[in-house]
Amino acid sequence: MLLTKRLVRCRRLFSTSLILHNQNYSPESDTYNDTRSRVIFSGIQPTGIPHLGNYLGALANWVKLQNTASPSDELLFSIVGWHALTLPQAPQQLSEARMDMLAVLLAIGIDPKRSIVFHQDHNPNHTELAWIFNCITPMGKLRRMTTWKSRLAVSKNQADDAEISEAGLNLGLFAYPVLQAADILAYKATHVPVGDDQRQHLELCRVIAEQFNRNFKAKQPLFPLPTQLNTSSNRILSLRDPTSKMSKSAPDTSSRILLTDSPTIIAQKIRSAVTDSIPGITYDPVNRPGTANLLRILAACNNNEDVRKTAMKYKGKNHGDLKKDVTDAVEELLKGPRASFEILRREKDYLKQVAREGAEKARSKSEATMLEVRARVGLA
Amino acid sequence: MLLTKRLVRCRRLFSTSLILHNQNYSPESDTYNDTRSRVIFSGIQPTGIPHLGNYLGALANWVKLQNTASPSDELLFSIVGWHALTLPQAPQQLSEARMDMLAVLLAIGIDPKRSIVFHQDHNPNHTELAWIFNCITPMGKLRRMTTWKSRLAVSKNQADDAEISEAGLNLGLFAYPVLQAADILAYKATHVPVGDDQRQHLELCRVIAEQFNRNFKAKQPLFPLPTQLNTSSNRILSLRDPTSKMSKSAPDTSSRILLTDSPTIIAQKIRSAVTDSIPGITYDPVNRPGTANLLRILAACNNNEDVRKTAMKYKGKNHGDLKKDVTDAVEELLKGPRASFEILRREKDYLKQVAREGAEKARSKSEATMLEVRARVGLA
Repeated sequence: MLLTKRLVRCRRLFSTSLILHNQNYSPESDTYNDTRSRVIFSGIQPTGIPHLGNYLGALANWVKLQNTASPSDELLFSIVGWHALTLPQAPQQLSEARMDMLAVLLAIGIDPKRSIVFHQDHNPNHTELAWIFNCITPMGKLRRMTTWKSRLAVSKNQADDAEISEAGLNLGLFAYPVLQAADILAYKATHVPVGDDQRQHLELCRVIAEQFNRNFKAKQPLFPLPTQLNTSSNRILSLRDPTSKMSKSAPDTSSRILLTDSPTIIAQKIRSAVTDSIPGITYDPVNRPGTANLLRILAACNNNEDVRKTAMKYKGKNHGDLKKDVTDAVEELLKGPRASFEILRREKDYLKQVAREGAEKARSKSEATMLEVRARVGLA
Repeated sequence: MLLTKRLVRCRRLFSTSLILHNQNYSPESDTYNDTRSRVIFSGIQPTGIPHLGNYLGALANWVKLQNTASPSDELLFSIVGWHALTLPQAPQQLSEARMDMLAVLLAIGIDPKRSIVFHQDHNPNHTELAWIFNCITPMGKLRRMTTWKSRLAVSKNQADDAEISEAGLNLGLFAYPVLQAADILAYKATHVPVGDDQRQHLELCRVIAEQFNRNFKAKQPLFPLPTQLNTSSNRILSLRDPTSKMSKSAPDTSSRILLTDSPTIIAQKIRSAVTDSIPGITYDPVNRPGTANLLRILAACNNNEDVRKTAMKYKGKNHGDLKKDVTDAVEELLKGPRASFEILRREKDYLKQVAREGAEKARSKSEATMLEVRARVGLA
């Protein structure tokens, strides 16, 4: 009871600051998708508290999708612990990050009564389906994925993907696009909000779905071909090196703002953000990447206002004025989720219950798919 | 009741013909293994009725292991349907072969009250553990496995492994040694009866177990390093081409004797077995491979008698004499299992019940392992 009251208060705090993101998702025309309600699936790795880039680039969009979905749409949001294992993790940290990520999702407004929120590793149907997909996925297609190269490069602190060879590559990192396809198709998801860096994986997911439908024919194709939901194009860059994305793993912690950062820390990090020595404020991503990054953050916080319109307001102003306004806007954006999160992360029993109920709903839905899959491949 | 009676009769029929195989399994010294009872695991793919080579080379040894194990030993025998998917299968045939293989195992004397007999694909812990192992298994180690090359060569009807490139290779075939390691280690198996063609995979299984124990340390290493149980060295060759192994997939069906072949068919196939035109009978595997193969079959049927001793009995005799005795011995060996199988394969409800009970026992044992695994890697 107490928890519920506090949550309602926090949700209220938060809802006033909830930004509305761009509505330009464009489900491509697809016979399967045209005739049914949407099933929307997305996942996030539990590798630490999300930063502003994760939030503005993906998570806030999940909340918006949930809150604007039609009543017949189904939404599934998964904390994908098995994907986290593809790079080395400290087990104790991973275990905490798993729980924290659930608290974050609830704190930003994912509603477990409306959406299915669950830990991937609570549903063994994902790895079962991934194995079956392994058996119809050519090695050559996986070798052409570029993501394992960049993730391996990041993990080895190498700047250039081209230096990365398969030496030191684990099967898990190489195979994870197949598990990702299983994550999506176990629920026959029709729409997947992913960033452009994952476009290649979603394409592979469609190839796998088509291959399965072709190999194991019946009256109806079993799997839909999922469509990308363009998430907001908010590409937030590092505050310290505005030529690269804001990143969880960059050594300099002042390069990113975490969802849990205090107002003081937020102010410090924005104050020390790298900009340029050109007088005045203009939006020029090529020549003034740091300034452009701050403008993009501010525009995103202002209901995804057009960034050029935002820049116009700073005619005749300086970096100090801009940084102050960015600080205020980010604090306004984050204070609700932060307060909710601080309450929720301590409510371990509540989180466990949400996780348990989410897993039950997820399993029940994917088990229906698996009954069909097993029958089609001959394992029933 | 009726079923039980019939089974007892068949078992009796069979037990008189049950050959005793060589006892030379040699558990290597291993700290873990020395202090505990053995857990014995082995698997077989449901890809058709086993032939004489499968039976004399592996399955008869399972029965012997079961019947000579000490009461504290545990035995698990799995029908590994997920492995069958690594090469294309006709779903309807696979589904029937799955059920037939269970009937075969019971027919040859595997006792579901003594051993855990189950379908791999009824226990999702296998694919879950396989995913976790994927994340600690270097691609390079898998590329060095030779089995995927030979299986791919067979599937493409190419005689030479060297012609095989990774083009056309699916991830499942490449990754299956990792699933095999999970099959074994999900039960903390200490002993694995496998032929020499699988020695490489068991070695990889030990490497994976060691890597896991090292990466996720605690007071005790989680996994034992499983030891190979040398199965009988009965390498039975094709009756039509005695330079290659007796094979399920060879186009000429008279090259193999199936466990279900009638006496007439057995006689025909042995009569048409390729031998040589050298007068008399001697054991000379290099120059007289067909004759040597028949002598090995006969020796195996005679309580695994030394093949040279068998050959001595045919001094002054000819191929006709030898073929007649081989025919009689094989028929004597197979008539019990064949009769049991014909009864069992029709008892679908009984088979389903055995499969269900086996899966429950298997899952209960592997779930205990998985609770520890999840805690160690941080997914709990």
